[in-house]
Amino acid sequence: MKATILHAPRDIRVEEVEDPAVQRPTDALVRVTAACVCGSDLWPYRGINEVKRPRRIGHEFVGIVEEVGSEVRSLRPGDFVIAPFLYSDNTCPHCQVGLQSACANGGGWGGKDREGLMVDGGQGEYVRVPLADGTLVSTREVPDDAQVPSMLALSDVMATGWHAAVAAGVREGDTVVVVGDGAVGLCGVLAAAQMGAERVVAMSRHESRQRLAREFGATDVVAERGSDGEDAVRELTDGVGADAVLECVGTGEAMQTAITVARPGATVGYVGVPHGVELPIGDMFSRNVGVAGGVAPVRQYLPRLRDDVLSGAISPGAVFDLEVPLADAAEAYAAMDERRAIKSLIRP
Amino acid sequence: MKATILHAPRDIRVEEVEDPAVQRPTDALVRVTAACVCGSDLWPYRGINEVKRPRRIGHEFVGIVEEVGSEVRSLRPGDFVIAPFLYSDNTCPHCQVGLQSACANGGGWGGKDREGLMVDGGQGEYVRVPLADGTLVSTREVPDDAQVPSMLALSDVMATGWHAAVAAGVREGDTVVVVGDGAVGLCGVLAAAQMGAERVVAMSRHESRQRLAREFGATDVVAERGSDGEDAVRELTDGVGADAVLECVGTGEAMQTAITVARPGATVGYVGVPHGVELPIGDMFSRNVGVAGGVAPVRQYLPRLRDDVLSGAISPGAVFDLEVPLADAAEAYAAMDERRAIKSLIRP
Repeated sequence: MKATILHAPRDIRVEEVEDPAVQRPTDALVRVTAACVCGSDLWPYRGINEVKRPRRIGHEFVGIVEEVGSEVRSLRPGDFVIAPFLYSDNTCPHCQVGLQSACANGGGWGGKDREGLMVDGGQGEYVRVPLADGTLVSTREVPDDAQVPSMLALSDVMATGWHAAVAAGVREGDTVVVVGDGAVGLCGVLAAAQMGAERVVAMSRHESRQRLAREFGATDVVAERGSDGEDAVRELTDGVGADAVLECVGTGEAMQTAITVARPGATVGYVGVPHGVELPIGDMFSRNVGVAGGVAPVRQYLPRLRDDVLSGAISPGAVFDLEVPLADAAEAYAAMDERRAIKSLIRP
Repeated sequence: MKATILHAPRDIRVEEVEDPAVQRPTDALVRVTAACVCGSDLWPYRGINEVKRPRRIGHEFVGIVEEVGSEVRSLRPGDFVIAPFLYSDNTCPHCQVGLQSACANGGGWGGKDREGLMVDGGQGEYVRVPLADGTLVSTREVPDDAQVPSMLALSDVMATGWHAAVAAGVREGDTVVVVGDGAVGLCGVLAAAQMGAERVVAMSRHESRQRLAREFGATDVVAERGSDGEDAVRELTDGVGADAVLECVGTGEAMQTAITVARPGATVGYVGVPHGVELPIGDMFSRNVGVAGGVAPVRQYLPRLRDDVLSGAISPGAVFDLEVPLADAAEAYAAMDERRAIKSLIRP
């Protein structure tokens, strides 16, 4: 089959690799019908994370089950499935409390598992899915083509934005600030609005993203950054600050802004992978501002978010503003790297 | 009247000071019947916080209302009252959400207020209480002498331990670890047990404190510190970690232990004033361990905790293991400084 391989910084190629197959009784073989590029894929792409040798890449995909192992109970060939960006058994103590991203037996796509078997990346024609019952979530029927981008968004960005809002403790009537206007931040806006926030302030400098933020439910946009942005939020909230803050970037500056605009007693829900973040514990202590979040337990949220897509309540697929065939995966990366696209969808 | 004055490190004296009086219509004048020394009073006492000039000290007291200003509605002369360690108006936006420790018009005891009027410290014969309606909580009747230490404990340590448990999100059936066996940590044990924790692990090296921890509801005691202590908790929790952790010390080592023993997805509720704490954001992110807490909003918890003392459900006064008359305040400090006492009670 064909799959995307990262050879070196900015050197993405689509190449012929070994066809995957069911190898364990708990496996499923999935034919990928749509995949996408994650902001975190850009770190090795840009060389920020070292690329020591050519590696398979991609961890967001949806597709059709082709074959299942003998112990798989919840899936059948022909099912449309959404894959979280991590696989999990959904039965270990961490999974049982809904934190499948800490699964004792789970792992990531595009490398070897604990026993040395290859687990395919998401950007290819097929994927061998370990622990299929605990990982994949299916729909009753194969969804319309128009719904596929929204289903695909659930595999990471929408569930991650949702996690930020859950971690921040968003409640009905809240004023919520979202720091970051990437796909995750935009999905965070959508999540906060869905949870009943009365006011959702999107911090965004880019007009196209501001527009999408408003479409997703933002009531206010703050274009300034740093202390100017913090002042703008302070003014919008009558000097009180936000009831909940979603930090969807991961830089020190973004976290600083998030904590500063939080009202005393509020929680910053953070899902941006921290790069150079130092938490200001003195300020947090004196104002009782908490931080919570981390790697999103996508599997926990998938059934609910799937139903919300099917009912039309949410359409997070709007974050995709570029679609390319698998052969053009390099362009999917370049467009996101150069900020020509918010998020790229790849059709194998 | 007589009041405690800190002149220099380890130089505590009881001296004659100006008699306080009602100065504003929202003031109350309180005759202090019991006060105590806080772990945080030891910082200036030990010279860790600089003592630039002689200053009044003490922020934990209970007493009898002597006189009220013309606008005070909830209190009458003769009422027994509990004072939180901060005063507050209980009406500002922060108070309204229960975070009276961030009151826009509040402040602390033993110094000048925003307009330059003296606010007495708690360790003296009388205190002028600003914003009396928003600050003091009274009982229907003057409680028995035997209940006074427990009422006094509510002014800081019990409410602070309670805040740690609230911030950590303790729920019925949880396994909770409490880091720190000072008065606050011990009250944290009591709070967690009251909230229905099934297992409460007290980390304590001191036999007398271990005994009190068990009296307060600890089911397990871990005497080891650092990585040995973390290993012991890991073993006690079958490798999973604690559902909630209370950090009641404030040192970097204590916070490190608290975060390490938290299970993925758990929250560390911290109330130890941070001294040299650096939060390990990478570990927090990968395991979804949150931190929440800070300066306890004592006023929020007082009505409930008062009722719990009156009903006999809690007796946090057991943390006092030394009682001295006001004239011997210096001994109250020395005993805590030298760890001869967990907490000292002062009777004016």
